[in-house]
Amino acid sequence: GRLHNSEAFNYGVETWEAYKRGGLSKDLVEEQKKVQEADLLIFQFPLFWFNMPAILKGWMDRVLVQGFAYDLSKAYDAGLLQGKLSLFSFTTGGSQEMYSKEGIGGDIRYVLWPMQHGIMHFCGVKVLEPHICYAPENVSEQERKEMLTAWTQRLKTLWKEEPIDCSPEWYFK
Amino acid sequence: GRLHNSEAFNYGVETWEAYKRGGLSKDLVEEQKKVQEADLLIFQFPLFWFNMPAILKGWMDRVLVQGFAYDLSKAYDAGLLQGKLSLFSFTTGGSQEMYSKEGIGGDIRYVLWPMQHGIMHFCGVKVLEPHICYAPENVSEQERKEMLTAWTQRLKTLWKEEPIDCSPEWYFK
Repeated sequence: GRLHNSEAFNYGVETWEAYKRGGLSKDLVEEQKKVQEADLLIFQFPLFWFNMPAILKGWMDRVLVQGFAYDLSKAYDAGLLQGKLSLFSFTTGGSQEMYSKEGIGGDIRYVLWPMQHGIMHFCGVKVLEPHICYAPENVSEQERKEMLTAWTQRLKTLWKEEPIDCSPEWYFK
Repeated sequence: GRLHNSEAFNYGVETWEAYKRGGLSKDLVEEQKKVQEADLLIFQFPLFWFNMPAILKGWMDRVLVQGFAYDLSKAYDAGLLQGKLSLFSFTTGGSQEMYSKEGIGGDIRYVLWPMQHGIMHFCGVKVLEPHICYAPENVSEQERKEMLTAWTQRLKTLWKEEPIDCSPEWYFK
């Protein structure tokens, strides 16, 4: 559709205005409908360069627009997606030691912070304990099977879990 | 082209093998050529959700493949792109206070760490001091002009700058 302000293009403002007048692309509207209907959002992916793969990052960039996911002064505990839960489940290339506090990759919490706090908590979504499978490529077939079993087991009782404390202290104490 | 291992698809292995046999897509080969010829890589973007926009994240995911940017035990100071410099220049939506140590967004260094250390340093590329313009949307026209002038000025003497200390201590002390 037409731009809200064609003289000074501002991506955030344009998506916000498009959301308000129902002018977002059909694929985004469908994704937003899925989010609205969901009680729990599970994001499952291989960690690429300390963050999600671009295609999932693009989902965040395009779907979680102002007006839908957050608004002026409606962020964090006041975010528009309150009442929902989320869970980040991912595999890494590096080992668990690499992501330890003294590891060369840096504490895994530096990976979790932008996703869990910066995105989900910002939109008012609470987060369950992340599910991380370290370096499945470099473990035995037996250990890979155990990783899958652990995930299957966890899914069975996921509804009984309490969200983690979303405060900065959870990450950086 | 054909897959290296069509029974167990592994994106990292496939791009690595494709790189070695010259089978990467033409657009990636062109981007890799640009990187190879460059002495300095400047990444300039608006910060989206505490990281780069998906289209730039996709550039990192697709261009910086194993064999080209790093290799087995050739990472960090031994990374394959040694001798190059990089600079992350970005604008934020949030204010500088939001990204201060005690700010709700968390210390800006948690944003810098995955990009500068996790990507560039991992590939052997040294990094110059980041260039961050906080919340240009919310400052006066005069301040926006000053931001542009400061960037223009910096570019003039960029070649005299020394890279920052890439160690975890720079980020998390």
